[in-house]
Amino acid sequence: MDVKVVNFKEKFSKLEKRHSYKIIAQMNEYYFKIVKAKREFIWHSHPETDEVFVVIDGELKIDLRDKALHLKKGDMVVIPRGVEHKPSCHDECHVILIEPAETVNTGDKVSDMLDTDLEWI
Amino acid sequence: MDVKVVNFKEKFSKLEKRHSYKIIAQMNEYYFKIVKAKREFIWHSHPETDEVFVVIDGELKIDLRDKALHLKKGDMVVIPRGVEHKPSCHDECHVILIEPAETVNTGDKVSDMLDTDLEWI
Repeated sequence: MDVKVVNFKEKFSKLEKRHSYKIIAQMNEYYFKIVKAKREFIWHSHPETDEVFVVIDGELKIDLRDKALHLKKGDMVVIPRGVEHKPSCHDECHVILIEPAETVNTGDKVSDMLDTDLEWI
Repeated sequence: MDVKVVNFKEKFSKLEKRHSYKIIAQMNEYYFKIVKAKREFIWHSHPETDEVFVVIDGELKIDLRDKALHLKKGDMVVIPRGVEHKPSCHDECHVILIEPAETVNTGDKVSDMLDTDLEWI
């Protein structure tokens, strides 16, 4: 079994397109995905799972129905299952998501923001 | 439900003792734990789960039976279930571990390095 060290910056440097999620690691049935984003996403939730966001660079705002979370480099948050949230990055942000392999970015919503291009990087 | 941003550096600044694991977040049945370490740990494995190490500061060496992994700040690795490993930090390192809540630091081994002081920080 080949066990390899993953460097976050090196993985992000390979990521050419914004809003295209790529897998950098798997732990049991969970994927670690990276994304470069500069957009306002849609309100959605994941009824079946908690979801982790870790900010590697830039700033990420996550609106909840009752408040807004502001994350910077070195911050993480767990969005509990079923909690509606709307992530947005005014300037480009680099984010790691941790969630079950079958989780889709748009959660319970039908949207053309659905990412269909998930693969390993 | 109170959803809070977790800042890694702030959490590590609260951690006074070395080799005492503290929980900073929970995603489903997984804990995110932090530890400050400066020691050579024991050979062990976790037969029931993969285990993630993320280095926040310093350098972490993880010996495997067939090679050694060298992790620095901004690196992560997934140690697959059942794979024997021996982590060590020559100088103090700050590490996040991600693994199921019931996973213990010493894995399948009986050792006085078993951490019995796990709590939230």
